[in-house]
Amino acid sequence: MLSFQDCKKVIFEAVSICDTEIISVRQSMGRVLAEDLTVSRDYPDTNLSAVDGYAVRFGSDFCFKNRGVVAAGQLPDFKLESGECAAVMTGATVPEGTDCVVRVEDCIETDGIVKTQTDLRSGVLINKSAFEASAGKALARKGLRIKHSLYPSLFYAGISQVKVYKQPKVGVLMTGNELREVESGAAKGQVFNTNFYIIESVLNAIGLDCLYRESVPDDEAATRKALETMADKCDFIISSGGVSMGRFDFIKKVFNQTDFSLIIQGTPIKPGRPLMVAKRENKLFFGIPGYPAAFFVNTLLYLVPALKIACGRIDHEHQLFNAILTTPTRSREGRLYLNRIKLQLEKGQWTAQDVESQKTSHFLNFAEVNGLAYLPETVGNLDTGAIIQALHFDIELS
Amino acid sequence: MLSFQDCKKVIFEAVSICDTEIISVRQSMGRVLAEDLTVSRDYPDTNLSAVDGYAVRFGSDFCFKNRGVVAAGQLPDFKLESGECAAVMTGATVPEGTDCVVRVEDCIETDGIVKTQTDLRSGVLINKSAFEASAGKALARKGLRIKHSLYPSLFYAGISQVKVYKQPKVGVLMTGNELREVESGAAKGQVFNTNFYIIESVLNAIGLDCLYRESVPDDEAATRKALETMADKCDFIISSGGVSMGRFDFIKKVFNQTDFSLIIQGTPIKPGRPLMVAKRENKLFFGIPGYPAAFFVNTLLYLVPALKIACGRIDHEHQLFNAILTTPTRSREGRLYLNRIKLQLEKGQWTAQDVESQKTSHFLNFAEVNGLAYLPETVGNLDTGAIIQALHFDIELS
Repeated sequence: MLSFQDCKKVIFEAVSICDTEIISVRQSMGRVLAEDLTVSRDYPDTNLSAVDGYAVRFGSDFCFKNRGVVAAGQLPDFKLESGECAAVMTGATVPEGTDCVVRVEDCIETDGIVKTQTDLRSGVLINKSAFEASAGKALARKGLRIKHSLYPSLFYAGISQVKVYKQPKVGVLMTGNELREVESGAAKGQVFNTNFYIIESVLNAIGLDCLYRESVPDDEAATRKALETMADKCDFIISSGGVSMGRFDFIKKVFNQTDFSLIIQGTPIKPGRPLMVAKRENKLFFGIPGYPAAFFVNTLLYLVPALKIACGRIDHEHQLFNAILTTPTRSREGRLYLNRIKLQLEKGQWTAQDVESQKTSHFLNFAEVNGLAYLPETVGNLDTGAIIQALHFDIELS
Repeated sequence: MLSFQDCKKVIFEAVSICDTEIISVRQSMGRVLAEDLTVSRDYPDTNLSAVDGYAVRFGSDFCFKNRGVVAAGQLPDFKLESGECAAVMTGATVPEGTDCVVRVEDCIETDGIVKTQTDLRSGVLINKSAFEASAGKALARKGLRIKHSLYPSLFYAGISQVKVYKQPKVGVLMTGNELREVESGAAKGQVFNTNFYIIESVLNAIGLDCLYRESVPDDEAATRKALETMADKCDFIISSGGVSMGRFDFIKKVFNQTDFSLIIQGTPIKPGRPLMVAKRENKLFFGIPGYPAAFFVNTLLYLVPALKIACGRIDHEHQLFNAILTTPTRSREGRLYLNRIKLQLEKGQWTAQDVESQKTSHFLNFAEVNGLAYLPETVGNLDTGAIIQALHFDIELS
């Protein structure tokens, strides 16, 4: 079995990056830049007043004749001569001839004459043309997801269209007779379909949709047919369950009959060992073990970065940061353990609290955790106070 | 002027929490729980096999007569007598009488007789009824946003409908003649509308929409009319610009003529001092200064937590964590500085890199930052190596 790092390498190298397309900036939220962006003109492109006040041209004293008002967005239609001024609003272009700007609260205007006692120095309170940036300056890098403050920055920079990566087509195949949907209510010995909603949640967080979804009963022919159909339509085919040692684990059997090549058969992580990943041309198949905890962890560890790569993102690596354990946590050497934790801040320091159960067959406590402890193969049990590496869902799933 | 902490207190106490409604769990992604949730039945509700293998009832030796197959989701229609077994799949209900489960790889089956050499101990590899949780166990707390792993947990717990908070109605009023839309191209001395897209981006990240949007020119009557109309429709009215000392800053004037009560007039932060917040019944008006950097910072510091509170969230406090400066950064005592930073990880430690400019009139560098340094009133300039408190956009905007 490959090591965790090698599994990542093999999977990530098998991902094909999507094509690009040009879209309106208004449709670009959550998409990924497929070009380096630069600033197309000087910022600002005129000399602007930094405040509400008076643009003045120095004269012989501290009295200035007011030539008029310039609002933000206006271009003044007059020049200032010696001893003249103009009322200017924040962000207004100052008239030609302006030496500096004086704040409105430092001036008194009477009958068109503005007096100030402020010290007058050349250039003060003027945001000079190109002060923020000259045309051609780098704005944003290819491979960044357009969100938070990058999205409005594109508008600020006057960009109306952006080249972005297309999004991978994702299909999900649910297997298993035991799966119920919540509207049907509980039935003894059966479990509710959870894994489809893990995929839905995760895709939504990273800006993708599930385009195709099929459920198949535990039947070999039906599984084969569904898999082939989905492989025609999708770039990523994700299945849940059917990869273990059971008689009804058809995914594995069916796979050996298709022309997909298996690139991963099992991965040394807990929960989630029996992962299968296969490839055909630029399509990737993820056969993820069916216990929801195992499914979630494999999704976060392998599938999410793979999807980010397909989207063209350069920030697909896990963001592991140090956190101090406030409870003991258990792991065994030889496998990478991903233990559920509650990450919290205490005086600026991240702390991690182990939750009651880390069992693969349990999932309810995923309702209350916001991260995973990443406990490499060489780490055993850990006590309160130990420093662990943590994954925070808000950071990984964004 | 109130301190930053007092501004937060005054604003947050003025927020009205939205009513609640019951929706399908399928529409609940990104919404906020308005009830504590508990587990409605035992998990699991039968005794399940933990693996693919054989459920056995101890007999006189290590040979067992195979009574049949139980798939996951099936209820067995037979009991095991002494010396009998049944093939069981992972998650299948084991027959009555089962003592333990043996892994399929530890057994050999020939002509309906299963032999094993494994040590047989009572209870092994059975997930007993209520092993994960008993009915009534706490699942998730009121006030949590339904995202990431909480969303699929609701399905796992068989919840088909959830009580959530309604969402506040948000309206945005853009003021200023100088604002252009990106499709019109640049014009000398004018700037592109950026602040509406800051609001759009931020609302989207926390799961809200902008329901109403209006742009008004620098005209007192038009501003008054737009404000009154929006106040009828919305819970939060946000305006951009018009709150400074300028002659065209009508927002301020108009406000003094309405029956909104001003609760904040200015806040000691940089960028973004001239914030105005006013209240009428359960409606809040945010008059946010127009420089995009000031607008973004006020939005993140005050508006986002206020919106989270309105949504019923209990996790609205800023998540400030320690980061080490890899560059110097500048601030002056007496105001809370929010400096743009690039947060990165180095061997598990968060580092913060100051960007070239922290000027209020600059915004282009928001394209490349992912957080803000939070530099309280008592902090002056800081050198490389100093520890700062940092806000990460991925965490705050989620």
